[in-house]
Amino acid sequence: ERWDSGTNLLLAAAYVSDAQYNRNIPFETSPQAIRLYYFYNHWTMQVAIYFFICVDLSLALFEEPALFPLPFLATSLAEVLCLMAFFGRLVHFAKVTPQMVFWKDTKNICIMVTIVLTLIDLIICGSLEAVNIHSVRWSRALRPVFLINFPESRQIRRTFRSIRNTLPDILYVFLLFMFSVLIFSLMALKLFGDRGLKTVEGLPYFTNILDIVFELYVLVTTANSPDVMMPAYNFNWWYSLYFITYIIINTYIFMSVFLAVVYNNYRKHLKNEIRKLAYLKRHKMIEAFNILKVQVGTEFVVMEAQWRRLAKVVAPHISSPHLELLLRISDEGQKGHVDKVNFLRLPDLLNIQVVTINVKRHPLEDWMPRVYQSSASLLVQRIVRHRIFVWVYDVIILINAIFIALDEKNPFISHAEWLFLSLYIIEILLKLYTYEPRAYFGRKQFWNWFDMLIIMAALVATLANTTIQSGQCHCFTLQLPLCRLVPEALLYPRFRVIVTTLINIGPTILTFGGLVLVVYYVFAIIGMEAFRGKVRFSDPNFTSPDALVCGNPALKDSAFARDRYCKNNFNDLASSFIVLMELTVVNQCLLLLAGGFALVTHQAAKLYFIGFHIVVVILIVNIFIAFILEAFFVAYSLEKSEVETAIEKKIQELGVGIQEEEMQDGKLIDNVDAKDSGFSGDDGDNKRKDLKGLYFRIASKKYRTVDALLQQMFESEIAPEEEGPSLDEILNFSPGDMYPKNPNFENSA
Amino acid sequence: ERWDSGTNLLLAAAYVSDAQYNRNIPFETSPQAIRLYYFYNHWTMQVAIYFFICVDLSLALFEEPALFPLPFLATSLAEVLCLMAFFGRLVHFAKVTPQMVFWKDTKNICIMVTIVLTLIDLIICGSLEAVNIHSVRWSRALRPVFLINFPESRQIRRTFRSIRNTLPDILYVFLLFMFSVLIFSLMALKLFGDRGLKTVEGLPYFTNILDIVFELYVLVTTANSPDVMMPAYNFNWWYSLYFITYIIINTYIFMSVFLAVVYNNYRKHLKNEIRKLAYLKRHKMIEAFNILKVQVGTEFVVMEAQWRRLAKVVAPHISSPHLELLLRISDEGQKGHVDKVNFLRLPDLLNIQVVTINVKRHPLEDWMPRVYQSSASLLVQRIVRHRIFVWVYDVIILINAIFIALDEKNPFISHAEWLFLSLYIIEILLKLYTYEPRAYFGRKQFWNWFDMLIIMAALVATLANTTIQSGQCHCFTLQLPLCRLVPEALLYPRFRVIVTTLINIGPTILTFGGLVLVVYYVFAIIGMEAFRGKVRFSDPNFTSPDALVCGNPALKDSAFARDRYCKNNFNDLASSFIVLMELTVVNQCLLLLAGGFALVTHQAAKLYFIGFHIVVVILIVNIFIAFILEAFFVAYSLEKSEVETAIEKKIQELGVGIQEEEMQDGKLIDNVDAKDSGFSGDDGDNKRKDLKGLYFRIASKKYRTVDALLQQMFESEIAPEEEGPSLDEILNFSPGDMYPKNPNFENSA
Repeated sequence: ERWDSGTNLLLAAAYVSDAQYNRNIPFETSPQAIRLYYFYNHWTMQVAIYFFICVDLSLALFEEPALFPLPFLATSLAEVLCLMAFFGRLVHFAKVTPQMVFWKDTKNICIMVTIVLTLIDLIICGSLEAVNIHSVRWSRALRPVFLINFPESRQIRRTFRSIRNTLPDILYVFLLFMFSVLIFSLMALKLFGDRGLKTVEGLPYFTNILDIVFELYVLVTTANSPDVMMPAYNFNWWYSLYFITYIIINTYIFMSVFLAVVYNNYRKHLKNEIRKLAYLKRHKMIEAFNILKVQVGTEFVVMEAQWRRLAKVVAPHISSPHLELLLRISDEGQKGHVDKVNFLRLPDLLNIQVVTINVKRHPLEDWMPRVYQSSASLLVQRIVRHRIFVWVYDVIILINAIFIALDEKNPFISHAEWLFLSLYIIEILLKLYTYEPRAYFGRKQFWNWFDMLIIMAALVATLANTTIQSGQCHCFTLQLPLCRLVPEALLYPRFRVIVTTLINIGPTILTFGGLVLVVYYVFAIIGMEAFRGKVRFSDPNFTSPDALVCGNPALKDSAFARDRYCKNNFNDLASSFIVLMELTVVNQCLLLLAGGFALVTHQAAKLYFIGFHIVVVILIVNIFIAFILEAFFVAYSLEKSEVETAIEKKIQELGVGIQEEEMQDGKLIDNVDAKDSGFSGDDGDNKRKDLKGLYFRIASKKYRTVDALLQQMFESEIAPEEEGPSLDEILNFSPGDMYPKNPNFENSA
Repeated sequence: ERWDSGTNLLLAAAYVSDAQYNRNIPFETSPQAIRLYYFYNHWTMQVAIYFFICVDLSLALFEEPALFPLPFLATSLAEVLCLMAFFGRLVHFAKVTPQMVFWKDTKNICIMVTIVLTLIDLIICGSLEAVNIHSVRWSRALRPVFLINFPESRQIRRTFRSIRNTLPDILYVFLLFMFSVLIFSLMALKLFGDRGLKTVEGLPYFTNILDIVFELYVLVTTANSPDVMMPAYNFNWWYSLYFITYIIINTYIFMSVFLAVVYNNYRKHLKNEIRKLAYLKRHKMIEAFNILKVQVGTEFVVMEAQWRRLAKVVAPHISSPHLELLLRISDEGQKGHVDKVNFLRLPDLLNIQVVTINVKRHPLEDWMPRVYQSSASLLVQRIVRHRIFVWVYDVIILINAIFIALDEKNPFISHAEWLFLSLYIIEILLKLYTYEPRAYFGRKQFWNWFDMLIIMAALVATLANTTIQSGQCHCFTLQLPLCRLVPEALLYPRFRVIVTTLINIGPTILTFGGLVLVVYYVFAIIGMEAFRGKVRFSDPNFTSPDALVCGNPALKDSAFARDRYCKNNFNDLASSFIVLMELTVVNQCLLLLAGGFALVTHQAAKLYFIGFHIVVVILIVNIFIAFILEAFFVAYSLEKSEVETAIEKKIQELGVGIQEEEMQDGKLIDNVDAKDSGFSGDDGDNKRKDLKGLYFRIASKKYRTVDALLQQMFESEIAPEEEGPSLDEILNFSPGDMYPKNPNFENSA
């Protein structure tokens, strides 16, 4: 949301205002400075910086241990190039930011320190390489710093901040948890240590305190349940009670407490950030108002001409009917000026997507009106528009699915494929006949495009398949039509809240992708340095004796080799990422991998796996769950904002709205033109004279992020007149302020 | 909380009031009816009914397949006896309940139907047994109905109601989830089906659609990760992307959505129930007030004498200073009567635990004051009271822990045991010397008792051990002193919120125990009928060939037998429960068990395991997590209630309070008498004349349940004068009312 911070608007206000007001502005507003600022924010610059970050991160693919080996010189040169780009970006940022603010910002310091450290490491490694000594390139683990700290990755940084703030609380629970594990370990040592029990592999069972701690820690992840219990349980029924108690306390209660602590902190910090953003925006908007205000009568207002210029600067691509609509809403009495409360709403107004709809007739209707309007043609159109038409095609797709699940070697079935394909093509043609093509393939009609592309792809692939006669891509093409069920399923009314929430959180899940990437990258670099080449995968059929022990005799007879885990290794970046992904899903994998790598290196290797589990499963997965929970709670308490309601009301008042049926809201809006034609009857309305021929509709609320929703919720709590706290106070908000202590509590003691 | 429902108070009000008011009461209040009601609620009756429920449930231990076999006649007779007891209880309940209410209540109907069904089943089975035909005793799975439906198990019933209300929403997500699994299964069939891949066991990989659906469902539980992926991953690196996508969508996102939906519904229904309870209580209190009210001047009040009689009836064991204190708070102006607002607060007042503290001198001080007050003695007392004394003993316990972790065969270490024990005994003696013994072992000083008992037990066990010279119980006795670290860890200030919350939710976790018991019982009965005797565990060392295949040749070479899972069977109730517990923890166990039992019976057996997973993991574990999350959020937003504050203020005003330091709040309140002595200086205060020699302190808030806290929070939102909705409205509250739809939304369309 470009307007959410209000910065753009403040800059634009300074730009359109006369010079005499400039002394009020806390930063430089020469046209050159503003141009530099816009250039800094230009999309080409942002794409360039992301490109360099990608190059920098992907260097790990080409460095030893490499997926695609390149000489040291090449990768070093590429890295130096990236570092230069980062430095240039930083210098540019320093130019557009007040000096004091720039040096106070830890992220700039972070980037500079990382650049220097990387250069030092490069020089050391390069000189050692020149004399053929291999050394550890430790600075590679620092590369994600660039991804985190550039201003563009605000979301990832926020999640990191949230993690950092959660750490102290998590630490206390973790200590309590480790205390509990230790007590249980001591108990296990005394209970089972002397019994001479053996595990399935014939190893001694629970005789070493460190092994016990490790096994019990893994039991918390449920990875070795019930294997760890079986020897004791086989020996005596009652020993199962020990494990049941352990699982209830440590797996269920403590893991839930971790989630509760993470979630509580996540929510607290999220709300604090949102509050900060909301007040900052208000603060900037008030400054912008002060720059532009003139006195009319007793109150200060912004004149209509200034308002228009401002809106044109901040939103150059806005259509003039849209701008007119916004002005009508802001200047309710049509007095020629906008008052303060309405001016402060401007970013919200600009944020709301208003769909401008041009009512067009079907080209066939223009071309041959007689035929298109004939009763047979109208019947076809009515059938296509009918609900049953959709159902019939759903049934066809389901039958298709059953055919796919059956054996496709049967010639009848492979011929049926053609039948289905032609049915789908007929469907598309009928729809294009009924609906206006430009409306049907409108910018927002994502699912129509989806349908079309799938059928086209299936057609092309099946044709190619028949001519080339290779069975290779056969399997894919057959499946494609099935995907057409996806929108049907997703848009079913019962699933609405779930699906819209899932779509809403899509962008933020990408943020988590970034977060996971950062953590995986660091662990992968460490893992590659520690474990590379220890385990080798060579023969996919495991026929040679070397392949059976993963190229390492230490793994002979181990569960790791027996279950053919050889490909789970740290020999290159891609393999490392997959191993870490498996570890994230936890399960017996954790035990097998930790055990396997402990055999080939030494027992301390287990610490790497436990460390990864703590960071990823306890912190990141829990934050992910907290995030999804919060998204759903926000979705369940979703309400239309006040500003949106105002706009909608205005649109209705002006008579340029589209009736939005409750039922239709989430469904394909195929028949926009059909409904418009109902409207064109009351053309005589004189209110519409300025906006003639256009219809507006508030874009449906589906594609909003959780943050935007929360910010909106919070902003609706700030009174329209409220000035908010001072800038310093805003920047120093802490989550503690949100929950004021009960004043009675302290006094009553 | 006995007073929370207000029923007792309303009954008592009817009891103490004159007959002339009785026409206002909606139920019979003859002394006989009230006696019957009290008898129904008497603890002996409740214990008796729980006894019969336990007997009924535990019959499964004695019926075939039995842990302790008994003849069919004996178990049938016991069951008939239990049924008679349940019927009697029901008749008694019908006597004390208005007829209309009784017959409208589904739980009574449920119990009656279950009694009849069980009798029918018993008769059929008995007659078949007489002619030696074995039939399925299906009514055994109905037994938990009694546990759920008796009025005493309100909590379990509420959780069940919450589950039932969540079901529709869960169902939709589940359908979406199954749709996703099916789509992925079809894709897997096409991607991997023709490649001729083999699993580690050499079986064909992903060739049968039903097997794929099962494997992918199990992958959601993470039980077969990464084994299910390895063949494809070994074949081609890129296939891992399919599994990663699957895991992200189905394991992470869908499982979080399940939690979100369950949590959201749980919270909604919990709040609805709490609101219902709060309004019911208010309603009853207003009725009670109306029964007792007399007019004084312009307002209706309850006279002091009536108030006293009422309080004495509902709380017979209340001490008279405590009663006096409550009266002072209720009748602020000392006008001799209590007004309506203060009367409505009565249940809250009675609920607050006020600790009455008698300041006593140490008996040694009375006995030999000179010696006890000597400077040496005072120095000892000061040392014992000092923080460092506690720390020194913590270090001693930690050293003890290290000694235990070391080998105890070493004679030096086993002698050290005596040293530690004597140190602990010295500690207790010193504490008894310093603190007043009756205060030190007060009713609320749980941890002091705990310390004492542990040291005593360790002493007795070590003595017994040395005299008998058997190493068997050695291991336990050594460990006991370690438990003394538990209170130290738990009461560390940083852990306060966590520990108090965990203690708060303790009782409700028992409710979950009941819930899990019910589900386990039903699944265990079904499992025993389906799988009994299929898998046998005979030889703990797995030496005989029969033991190696768990007594069933079908298991030859299976992973089930190889990992020695034979003891995981359904041959008796206890084993079944342990198997179900393992399934709850999920993990590869699910796969091995489902695979093993599918081998010995038929493939449909897998449905039993999937069904259990859906019920227990998706529903119950998620509700458990939701419950813990909610408990923590309530704890984090914990505030002292208004009523408590009022009482505390009054206690302070009257000058009979104990200074409560923030720091000291959660710690052992060893030195209550020490702090009191500081107070005894200002004895001359004339306000205290009625309450002389006594001190009050609000019992700390630690031991409150989540429900009580929520109810308190909600009640503080009801205005003191508010009458609340009518009884019918209250009983028909639905959660939908809680979230009113935005009125603008509907109008704006």
